[in-house]
Amino acid sequence: MTAVPTIPGPVIHELKTLLGDDGFLTATTDREAYAWDNTGYRALPDAIALATSEEQICAILHLCHNHRVSVTPRGAGTGNVGGALAVQGGLVLSTQRMKHILEFSPADRYVIVEPGVVNHDLQKHLESSGLFWPPDPSSARACTVGGNIAMCAAGPGAVRWGVTRDWVLGLNAVLMDGTLIHTGGRTTKGVVGFDMTRLLTGSEGTLAVVSRAILKLAPRPEKRLLSRIAFPSVELAAAAVSTLLAARQPPSALEFLDGSALDLLRRETTLAIPKEARAMLLLEVAGGLHGLDAQIQEMINTILRFKPLEWTPPVDGSDAASVWQARSALSPILKKLAPKRINEDVVVPVSRLPALMAGLENISKDAGIPIINFGHAGNGNIHVNLLVDPQNEKIMSQVGGVLDRVFRLVLDLDGSLSGEHGVGTQKRDYIAWELDENCLSLQKQIKQVFDPLGLLNPGKIWPSS
Amino acid sequence: MTAVPTIPGPVIHELKTLLGDDGFLTATTDREAYAWDNTGYRALPDAIALATSEEQICAILHLCHNHRVSVTPRGAGTGNVGGALAVQGGLVLSTQRMKHILEFSPADRYVIVEPGVVNHDLQKHLESSGLFWPPDPSSARACTVGGNIAMCAAGPGAVRWGVTRDWVLGLNAVLMDGTLIHTGGRTTKGVVGFDMTRLLTGSEGTLAVVSRAILKLAPRPEKRLLSRIAFPSVELAAAAVSTLLAARQPPSALEFLDGSALDLLRRETTLAIPKEARAMLLLEVAGGLHGLDAQIQEMINTILRFKPLEWTPPVDGSDAASVWQARSALSPILKKLAPKRINEDVVVPVSRLPALMAGLENISKDAGIPIINFGHAGNGNIHVNLLVDPQNEKIMSQVGGVLDRVFRLVLDLDGSLSGEHGVGTQKRDYIAWELDENCLSLQKQIKQVFDPLGLLNPGKIWPSS
Repeated sequence: MTAVPTIPGPVIHELKTLLGDDGFLTATTDREAYAWDNTGYRALPDAIALATSEEQICAILHLCHNHRVSVTPRGAGTGNVGGALAVQGGLVLSTQRMKHILEFSPADRYVIVEPGVVNHDLQKHLESSGLFWPPDPSSARACTVGGNIAMCAAGPGAVRWGVTRDWVLGLNAVLMDGTLIHTGGRTTKGVVGFDMTRLLTGSEGTLAVVSRAILKLAPRPEKRLLSRIAFPSVELAAAAVSTLLAARQPPSALEFLDGSALDLLRRETTLAIPKEARAMLLLEVAGGLHGLDAQIQEMINTILRFKPLEWTPPVDGSDAASVWQARSALSPILKKLAPKRINEDVVVPVSRLPALMAGLENISKDAGIPIINFGHAGNGNIHVNLLVDPQNEKIMSQVGGVLDRVFRLVLDLDGSLSGEHGVGTQKRDYIAWELDENCLSLQKQIKQVFDPLGLLNPGKIWPSS
Repeated sequence: MTAVPTIPGPVIHELKTLLGDDGFLTATTDREAYAWDNTGYRALPDAIALATSEEQICAILHLCHNHRVSVTPRGAGTGNVGGALAVQGGLVLSTQRMKHILEFSPADRYVIVEPGVVNHDLQKHLESSGLFWPPDPSSARACTVGGNIAMCAAGPGAVRWGVTRDWVLGLNAVLMDGTLIHTGGRTTKGVVGFDMTRLLTGSEGTLAVVSRAILKLAPRPEKRLLSRIAFPSVELAAAAVSTLLAARQPPSALEFLDGSALDLLRRETTLAIPKEARAMLLLEVAGGLHGLDAQIQEMINTILRFKPLEWTPPVDGSDAASVWQARSALSPILKKLAPKRINEDVVVPVSRLPALMAGLENISKDAGIPIINFGHAGNGNIHVNLLVDPQNEKIMSQVGGVLDRVFRLVLDLDGSLSGEHGVGTQKRDYIAWELDENCLSLQKQIKQVFDPLGLLNPGKIWPSS
């Protein structure tokens, strides 16, 4: 694994010629503008290439490969695990200027896009057709489809529609040596050869750079209904989730907020929250214009067995949007309050949620570190936020041990270290806790097949040995 | 790629010791009983190992690896492309005796099974819970879950629920050298490392032998309604499919039969089919007890724009079952009438179905070979049956050219050579028509990573060079 800390002159010259002054950036201010992501960590790239076509991606990678320059692919930089950070310097290859929607077939329910199309812009484009692309990360207004695919992103809708891997039919992707490959196709079924589409989806830009994607679309629900259900304890809310999920009809979202998350919302938003509430569920159903009221009422009736404090009559439209806005504000609020908070997106089978919540409370008490939990309860996917004060040396010295306990707890509950954020730089030293040695070894060999020199997105996924 | 034609004495001795006389078969009658699959071709294995545990699978593969004996994994032998045929001799490793359901968590909607569990038996086991495993190949009463996973099987329900890869959460699998690996897990989300679960799903038993599977479950519909719609022409039926699929709510099945398929059903079943009908759609919707009638009626109204000859009032229960029975009988009837018929399961985007049907009719006329078409129109997945008479030398000499034309047509229509049957021995010489050279090369290298000696299921997928 070799990576050159600075980019050789001839490469700079060629990239400038290829991309123009506007498409190849080396000024310090530009480099700093591409040094961040959502982790709060920074890593300064040596230069940034802003590709505008698949041919340019091929040419850039081919050139960097020949000169042993490492390349970090980047979408909108909204990732949570350092995936888009050039931690070994080298070139950042941004696809954010590749925003074309190339082909749209409503009858076949697919759309073909360039990787830089913003998730939200795609949904807008599809709106009048009655179709949508289900992946809905909370960063949807900023994140790109290419980034969604690289990280196998998900959001609240995953409980009903699944994650990004379920909504990608095929890809064009470029290997580190500049070779273009095509995977999958325009059909909803296909079993010719290995499933390369899903091997690339979620590979965090370490195997290839997505240059084009064929996305599968779903009928957009005509109506959504949302109810908030407040509980006196986390345990009751968690137990309700598990029972609700065993019912016949899945909700379109089932979000969870613990007492500390509610305290934040009380302080920072206008959302009405009962005083005694120490947990809340946001329950959403989606579908056709008829029958939805009965459907959500049936679910609320199930929840009533768990003695909630109160539930709000189902709302839609702007009333629902303001609740979702408050939910989405949680991460930014936390980031403002505790810039160095540690955010882990662990996942357990939903029936283990009560045990997870109880375990996290113990860990928080033992360490004296506040932990705020919220997230996609319908998938057992909880965002565990450790609010640490970087000035407090005693606390900071404990963080490693606390994270160890959190991850051990999750794995003991048959869970996974990441439901939707990925590994990146943030969890690479824990990946061997979850994956067995043999499976890890196979994955490293697959990486070798795609990128023998280890130049593409180095320093990610695999443990720093 | 080395394969030993006969199994060395010490291996036979060890396998006998490991598996007993009942679990290790070498008699000619036994070998003949494992020489077939649904293709009609035969390949005699040298011996058969009937594993009853994961440990046995590891031991068998380890032993064969050390002695360079090739191994062909086998479920129920219902595959359509020769995947379970020991085309280079060696050992057949059957998992059909591994029938345990190991763990079932209704609240988490997963079940953990051994690979030999029959699809239909699994559904029976789940029935009272209100859940089911969506993959529904027409061989469901015989085929095993392990085989379903190896081939990424699908059936009529794929139009609504997707294919096997969408319903596998995790796997235990054994590499050719006897190494056990674990992929995925019990959660519905997870992005730690590459997606090895889906790399194995559909890899046709060439990468590893599945020894255990964690299956994702869905709520079983409470009710299903079926209507038959008869058309005067294939073109009108195909056009109706495409329009129907653009509507909001997906049907749970949308099957197509052409005029020749209807002729067969007229002759061999009691299904009422209008005399003038030259195509038929079977339209099924599934869901809760309420609202289904309105839903199917809305779809029928859409279809009426395409001037069908008639449609039957929606039926459920045994009335629907008898229609499905007739549909399922098509393949066996064809097999009886034309044992050497050639059955291809091509797939195109649904909007290209009219062009596919027109093209197939031209090919049939030009060659003087009757072609019967039916299948899963909702996914654009059509079973193209060439009725060839093996005694007719002139016809037989044309078959290669006709298949070439069929596949060229499908690829020109943005389709794929196989929607659900796979490649196996049957389409290996065509795979390079569909996959680009670079992608094919990567796949071969991935095969090398898993099975460097090329001993696991040799002679499948890759072109015979």
